[in-house]
Amino acid sequence: MKTYTYPKSAELFARAAKVIPGGVYGHLGPAEGCFMPVQAYPLFSSRAEGAYFWDVDGNRFIDYMCAYGPNILGYNDPDVDAAVQAQLKDGNCVSFPTAKLVDLGELMVDTVDMADWAFFAKNGGDTTMFSLMIARAATGRKKVVLTKGGYHGVAPWTQKAGHPGITPEDVANNLYVDFGDFEGLERLFAEHRGEIACFMSTPYYHPVFDDNRLPPDGYWKKVRELCTREGVVLAIDDVRCGFRLDVRGSDAHYGFEADLECFCKALANGWNISAVCGKDWLREAAGSVMYTGSYWLSAAPIAAAIACVGKMRKMDVAKVCTEKGRKLTSGLAEAGKRHGFDLKISGEPAMWFMRITDDPNMDHHQAWVAECVRRGVFFTNHHNLFINAALTDADIAFTLDVADEAFAAVKKDGPLSARKGW
Amino acid sequence: MKTYTYPKSAELFARAAKVIPGGVYGHLGPAEGCFMPVQAYPLFSSRAEGAYFWDVDGNRFIDYMCAYGPNILGYNDPDVDAAVQAQLKDGNCVSFPTAKLVDLGELMVDTVDMADWAFFAKNGGDTTMFSLMIARAATGRKKVVLTKGGYHGVAPWTQKAGHPGITPEDVANNLYVDFGDFEGLERLFAEHRGEIACFMSTPYYHPVFDDNRLPPDGYWKKVRELCTREGVVLAIDDVRCGFRLDVRGSDAHYGFEADLECFCKALANGWNISAVCGKDWLREAAGSVMYTGSYWLSAAPIAAAIACVGKMRKMDVAKVCTEKGRKLTSGLAEAGKRHGFDLKISGEPAMWFMRITDDPNMDHHQAWVAECVRRGVFFTNHHNLFINAALTDADIAFTLDVADEAFAAVKKDGPLSARKGW
Repeated sequence: MKTYTYPKSAELFARAAKVIPGGVYGHLGPAEGCFMPVQAYPLFSSRAEGAYFWDVDGNRFIDYMCAYGPNILGYNDPDVDAAVQAQLKDGNCVSFPTAKLVDLGELMVDTVDMADWAFFAKNGGDTTMFSLMIARAATGRKKVVLTKGGYHGVAPWTQKAGHPGITPEDVANNLYVDFGDFEGLERLFAEHRGEIACFMSTPYYHPVFDDNRLPPDGYWKKVRELCTREGVVLAIDDVRCGFRLDVRGSDAHYGFEADLECFCKALANGWNISAVCGKDWLREAAGSVMYTGSYWLSAAPIAAAIACVGKMRKMDVAKVCTEKGRKLTSGLAEAGKRHGFDLKISGEPAMWFMRITDDPNMDHHQAWVAECVRRGVFFTNHHNLFINAALTDADIAFTLDVADEAFAAVKKDGPLSARKGW
Repeated sequence: MKTYTYPKSAELFARAAKVIPGGVYGHLGPAEGCFMPVQAYPLFSSRAEGAYFWDVDGNRFIDYMCAYGPNILGYNDPDVDAAVQAQLKDGNCVSFPTAKLVDLGELMVDTVDMADWAFFAKNGGDTTMFSLMIARAATGRKKVVLTKGGYHGVAPWTQKAGHPGITPEDVANNLYVDFGDFEGLERLFAEHRGEIACFMSTPYYHPVFDDNRLPPDGYWKKVRELCTREGVVLAIDDVRCGFRLDVRGSDAHYGFEADLECFCKALANGWNISAVCGKDWLREAAGSVMYTGSYWLSAAPIAAAIACVGKMRKMDVAKVCTEKGRKLTSGLAEAGKRHGFDLKISGEPAMWFMRITDDPNMDHHQAWVAECVRRGVFFTNHHNLFINAALTDADIAFTLDVADEAFAAVKKDGPLSARKGW
């Protein structure tokens, strides 16, 4: 197989670094996103379609990051994009919303099991912030319990004191517990009885750099009962998992009901919208919080979300992605085995995490991922990956061929630290 | 003139209230946005074009809210929308940005006088939060000075302790000063020497419910010198004013240079993007802050911003909007005078504020605005209004006719409190 090079990405990155701090920043950049050897990765895309994107050097990739989640139906899905085009003829960001806002509210209430109402914003982080504010308004309490290593956006309260730009006051009301540690949660609730407004968690544990973990048996049922008993709002951050595990919400997938549930990413197949769904008892508190933004009721992303949710329901997208994910990940693990590598798969198949074990510096893993990427299979190193519904059996077969050759290359040329110029 | 009715808006609002807290929420809703008698205002749009929107009952309005700022070139501007359409063929939200991210970074640095670099996000509030985090990271200090009554988004630190969902810790590092009070600012800086990371302010004072105020002579020059002397980051929130006063930034308009400047609203004529521009000495701090979002590097809004900024420069949009604003507001004041009302105009002509004086409950003003709205001129009551470049002389003439008739109606039928059923 031919291996890719990235001269045009490198040229553009040099230009970017002059006018943008970090060049390409955030989770899409080399530093925070991919922990990538930039010699092996592209940094700029030129176009995307279905399960693929092409970089500015003309290289095609099967994209297992799916824009870090938003791409669930396939890039440029014809049904979602047709809904957007129809809306754009009439307008997008106007002084009032269109009737489609109401349609989408009704659709969310009909789709998401726990939802008595819905509220729309832009960032995933808008929805976690709003959820916490609702919980505080409803309970008159201040504290929030978060799981260690959980990700709920980039607002200061979601980060750690001591990180650049974060003050101790920003996180003064945070308490932390390990994911899945029910006894620890019970202890925190008892120690801070009457002070805790909210327990916020992802439905399962999907941090970077660490094996992902599903909820222990009975965990969520017990948490639900505890929160109800203690008057604590149970807020599920479904920004990353939402719709990939179950179109009814990931709480429904794991057999419980959240008080608030946050959606973003897959909600509109990449069109810019996020949502909070909530229970009736929090409706008044939600209405009391001052929360708004310039573009929040824009019509095009709302039209996209209506089309996307409808299509996800119709095709049972979670089942589709889960089956594709199972097939792919079992094949990847087998490919590793053939070359003497133990590729450990964790998390949910539709958004799995993987790492080579017995690899203390994650150095073989990074080399293997880089070898896959420069053969046209786009993985990142230490973040969960994503399946989309446009991925074909042929794409999976190609991926497994690439994975096999990449394992062979790592066996031959060694880990990343052994590579010259990487 | 025929006066409008809104049966379909009312029907939709009843449906919305069942599935969305508050029905239509935030600044677009009846409560926070317009302080409107719902019998006189529409609540849902069906389409928009140029300077107009049509509501779901088929009523046409000349729109002086401009989507609360984003509409600067006219709704559905053909040049901006063509740039978006060209981009959408290639994709929008992908695992990497396109080369257009770099083009936009370079364009912002070339356009905004103070800019050595640019950074893009989604909400205006993303940019004020990021600015504060950069200032804290750069200075190692915690406090921020804000002007009383200033608006910088909806994040908890921008609100007041005691508002629903806001804790004392959220605002523990805030200090407040009156807009334009240089001596007060000096005093705060002296009292908290070495503790203040940032002074954040809009370029002029444009609160709700109050006459807008331009900066006193020499104010910004003195503030700039003070901030430099004390090592405090001067961050200008140009989210609302940006490009309407001067395409080079509102700091340039008032003859000074900010360290950080926040843009949103008019940046892409309604496409969903915001930006922070900064000086070189803050580049490293900006790169150190963890700040990112799912849709932040999406290509379509970036393409829109490139087209919009280019067109705004070419046509000198600030001059165009300022001239239209002058013509309109002087005509409105004259119309008031003819009927014995003193309509006071304040702020900048491109985004003026108005109120009827000697009207302690703002009751005549609200009645007059309602009479304008139901004749097809969309104003809100206590928020500044906005001019867009698509507004024609005929639109201004029509507006003045409506204003005249509306003043006559208020003279005849009295203030809002005197109206039955309003």
